[in-house]
Amino acid sequence: MTAPFRIGFLLFPRVTQLDMTGPAQLLARMSNSEVFLVWKTLDPVPTDAGFSIVPTATFESCPPLDMVCVPGGGGQRLIMDDTDVLDWLRRQGQQAKYVTSVCSGSLLLGAAGLLRGYKAGAHWLVRDELTKYGATPVAQRVVKDRNRITGGGVTAGIDFALAIIEEIRGAEEAKAMQLMFEYDPQPPYDCGTPDKATPETIARAKAMILALRDEAARGAQPA
Amino acid sequence: MTAPFRIGFLLFPRVTQLDMTGPAQLLARMSNSEVFLVWKTLDPVPTDAGFSIVPTATFESCPPLDMVCVPGGGGQRLIMDDTDVLDWLRRQGQQAKYVTSVCSGSLLLGAAGLLRGYKAGAHWLVRDELTKYGATPVAQRVVKDRNRITGGGVTAGIDFALAIIEEIRGAEEAKAMQLMFEYDPQPPYDCGTPDKATPETIARAKAMILALRDEAARGAQPA
Repeated sequence: MTAPFRIGFLLFPRVTQLDMTGPAQLLARMSNSEVFLVWKTLDPVPTDAGFSIVPTATFESCPPLDMVCVPGGGGQRLIMDDTDVLDWLRRQGQQAKYVTSVCSGSLLLGAAGLLRGYKAGAHWLVRDELTKYGATPVAQRVVKDRNRITGGGVTAGIDFALAIIEEIRGAEEAKAMQLMFEYDPQPPYDCGTPDKATPETIARAKAMILALRDEAARGAQPA
Repeated sequence: MTAPFRIGFLLFPRVTQLDMTGPAQLLARMSNSEVFLVWKTLDPVPTDAGFSIVPTATFESCPPLDMVCVPGGGGQRLIMDDTDVLDWLRRQGQQAKYVTSVCSGSLLLGAAGLLRGYKAGAHWLVRDELTKYGATPVAQRVVKDRNRITGGGVTAGIDFALAIIEEIRGAEEAKAMQLMFEYDPQPPYDCGTPDKATPETIARAKAMILALRDEAARGAQPA
């Protein structure tokens, strides 16, 4: 048996947990894979959804990864210049086969200098901020540029994970995964991106996200 | 301000965590809502994806819920006749406004006697088992019969959550949520249900699920 394909997700306070739990679900079931949730300590980390998730490795104990993945979320703004975080991302990013993100996680990859000269995706609301880090924003659900694979907002993590599985293990395994997870989505509306939504829906979604970000910036306890 | 809408998810060892973390993500951001993850103790609960999630309430401390939701997963077979679990479900189910599930969670609702005479959904592989509990299986992503709302397999939890938000807070809030979570899915293949998949893909998905179930039955540690 060959060595397992090792995947590490950065887990940080007020992470949008579905950015991570979505792809982690699929990737944990990929054949011969090993998933790590990595943070400074092994203490439970409060997510944005009112509950905590327990890391499985620290920056020190995490082995060299085949794939590093950064999820997004309101708490991210508090670690954009955290040297422990950025150093770990750089260290893993330099040797990993794939450097990846979901949602606003690509901004953190950018802050670590890992997207300079690359095309990348992000949640629609923050996508343009990628230019600050020398990356070219692309309005796609999954953006692949050499070994950088970056997903769009939150639920794009499922499409992202299936793209990764196809890349690593091939289309037949990815198809079985799609069926196993009954991924035959039926969104109730056709408003999942700003170009399809009304100005009212956009304003409402934006207000909700900015309120969460302010809450995080104030260091308030997640609701 | 009116009382928050209280939602409780049953959290159990070897839960398919995305059955819960998907809808919990959306419902935690629904206006004036409160989400509880409920188990016997407050110790971290190992999920099927190699990491643990911390419950936020026990069967004793959990307040009366407006909505109770049961996710599925391999570990479920170990609690199908656990009286602590079934008693709690019955107690909450009798007074809750909504009795709900995602994936194979509906079988546990059935075991608690809460689906007798109702139409219900479930993961495609176990859907027919609903008849054992006097329920009528329906091959839909979200099945609503009076106050029972039951979802299909795993990723159906997102469609399920949007249906709940529309039901509780109206279409405008549900639309803003769909946009906030950038839910504009682009599945790589068209094989998310057995009627769309090839026999090979079905056999492969089935084998993966049965292997996980066996592992759970043997009480093995989640990988």
